[in-house]
Order: sequence, then C-alpha cells, then structure tokens
Amino acid sequence: MLRLYDNHKSGNGYKLRLLLAHLGQAFERIEVDIDTGGSRTPAFLQKNPNGRIPVLELEDGTCLAESNAILFYLAEGTRFLPSDRLLRAQTLQWMFFEQYSHEPFIAVVRHWLHLGALTDQQRAQLPAKREGGHAALAVMESHLDGAGWFGGPGVTIADIALYAYTHVAEEGGFDLGAYPNVRAWLDRVAAAPGHVPMALEELS
Amino acid sequence: MLRLYDNHKSGNGYKLRLLLAHLGQAFERIEVDIDTGGSRTPAFLQKNPNGRIPVLELEDGTCLAESNAILFYLAEGTRFLPSDRLLRAQTLQWMFFEQYSHEPFIAVVRHWLHLGALTDQQRAQLPAKREGGHAALAVMESHLDGAGWFGGPGVTIADIALYAYTHVAEEGGFDLGAYPNVRAWLDRVAAAPGHVPMALEELS
Repeated sequence: MLRLYDNHKSGNGYKLRLLLAHLGQAFERIEVDIDTGGSRTPAFLQKNPNGRIPVLELEDGTCLAESNAILFYLAEGTRFLPSDRLLRAQTLQWMFFEQYSHEPFIAVVRHWLHLGALTDQQRAQLPAKREGGHAALAVMESHLDGAGWFGGPGVTIADIALYAYTHVAEEGGFDLGAYPNVRAWLDRVAAAPGHVPMALEELS
Repeated sequence: MLRLYDNHKSGNGYKLRLLLAHLGQAFERIEVDIDTGGSRTPAFLQKNPNGRIPVLELEDGTCLAESNAILFYLAEGTRFLPSDRLLRAQTLQWMFFEQYSHEPFIAVVRHWLHLGALTDQQRAQLPAKREGGHAALAVMESHLDGAGWFGGPGVTIADIALYAYTHVAEEGGFDLGAYPNVRAWLDRVAAAPGHVPMALEELS
C-alpha cells in the first residue's frame, strides 16, 4: 500500500490527501512531528535528504518528495492532469507559481502565527511577506476573471496545489474580501464530488 | 518562431537558452530590463500577470511563464525528459526542490550582491540565506554520491534547472570547495555536447 509521511497541519500534505481522496486510492498515513525534528532524524533523511514532509513511499520502498511532484506522479493518466502538452505545461506553471510566489508568503505567515509570538526577524519580514501574499492573490484573481480553473476544465492538480493554502489564508491574516473570484473558485473546488476537508477526523 | 522574453543576467532565463541550444531550436530572444521595471509594464503583465521573466511566447501568441514549466514543455518527447512515470516525477521533484529550497537562497544572494551594497534587512537575512543555500548544496552533494545526474541517465531538465544557479553560486559567496560531487557534476553538465555558457556573446 502507498504510505504517506505527513503532518496534519501541513497544506502540502493536505494536497496529497485531497488528490488521493478524489482518486479513491487507499494509503497509510504516517504522522511526522515536524515541530520536534521528526523530519530530520537519520531514518527520515534516508527517505528525503531535504528533511521535509510530505513524502510518498511506493510499494517497492522508493520515496518521492516535493508535494507538487507527488501530485503529478499520482495524477498521470487521470482527469486531474491534462494530457494535452500545452495544458499540462500550464498546469505546471501554476504549480511552480504556487511554490515560488504563493507558499513562501501565505503558508509561511500562517505557520509563524500558529507557532505563537513572532521573533524580531519574522516581525521585520512581515510587511514584505504580506505584500508578496497579496501579490499572489491578485495574480490568481486576475486569472480567474477569464477562467474557472487553473489547469484546465474542472479541478486539476493546479487547483489542488493552490487550494491547500489559499483556503486557510485567513489563518495567516490574509483577508480574502478583495478577491471575489478567488472566493468563488474556493467554493467550486470544495463543492467538487470527492472533496475532503483539511482537518483530519482522527485528530479533531 | 518561438520568442523568449529574457534577461541576460537571469539564471532562470539561462535554463531555457541552454535547453534550446541542446535541442537546436531557433528562437528570438528579447531582452527585458528587469531592474527598471520592464517586467511590470502593462504590456508585459499581459504576457505574465506575475510580472517575471522568463516568458516563452509560442507562435500563436500563447505565453507560458515559470522557467521550470517552460523547460518541461520544451523537453516533452525528447531525451531531456524521461518518459518513465517514476523518473519523470523524480525529475520534477528536483525541479521543485530547485525553486523552493535552492533558488531563493543561492540565486537571491547572488542578485543582492550584484545590485551593490546590501540593505539592512538583506543583511539581517543573510545568515539564514547562507544556511539555506549550503543546506541545498549538501542535499545535492549527498544525492550525487550515488548517482551521476538528477533526473535520469544523462543530462535532463532537472540538471539544467539546478545547473543554472549552482554554477554561479560563488558569485553569491557560496564556496563550492566542500562539495566535490557537485563540482564534478557541474563539469559533466558543461562537457555535454551542445552546452552553451550563460554569458551572451552579443552582450559580452
């Protein structure tokens, strides 16, 4: 069985839980305590030398890291990844946008706020982080003006990648009030058959 | 003809120049002055609402952004992108690693140093940027211990993505002395038939 090394608070982990639910694919979820170094142990570094969750362990023991690469692996041959060459590249364009221009701002600030009081250095970086996050939301808003989705007709892995941290952006203090297209798209993603929420029943 | 919106100092742009050279694919290169806002004009934002180079404009006017998504688009069906599902996902794993764990440290510090004196906030972030860059180099070093390349046998787009900023890491003050596997791999990439340097003859 597929084995997912995950943390219940991680949006990057949630991306995979959400796609696996859509695919109806069974998997074993292994909680890794990232706050106490669980992703930096020698055993875990064997699975991902970069010391991060999520990691997908295949049945033969091969480990795959990077949430968006794992999404691509799982989605090949399904309706969650277009087969057309250009649509496939546009799907990846949004996934690289997510990791470079979205996650380092929106997810990182949410993580800082979850951890408690900000350090002085975090406080100094906060204005730039806020600006970067709102810039990403504005790019999404303008794209959705002309299109219902990010990767193609219907939910693709580009939508799943962007949904994971956008739908909890307000936990990082990012007000979505000025982004009506983004809010409507969040509702469409959540309404798709097979959708599951981020919170895990077993832990709630 | 393919049109590449580029900046001659950009490693992200160089990735595409390097792959296009390997493929023997003709293209028109358009220099964008990113230091004076050339990627933020209304006309450019029509091509990429995220306001960044590189952008590849196809013959029908469709624009594709994100260097690594463009690499994937150009490499489909060639030896620079494996066709095997797992190798393809591992290639993407290293490309997402490059954008999240490598470029924001190694490329960003190089860019800061090129611009001149650091701002106070850049100076405050420098130790964390150095640590992040060396962590990325250490991950690469350990991977290369068991394998000659990142994406498969021979140069793939994972190698091209990682080569672009690694081979100029010392311009950002990252000493590669402690990474002999990385240095040997840089030499292998540069020795591959069809390789071209980052510096543009027309501008040197």
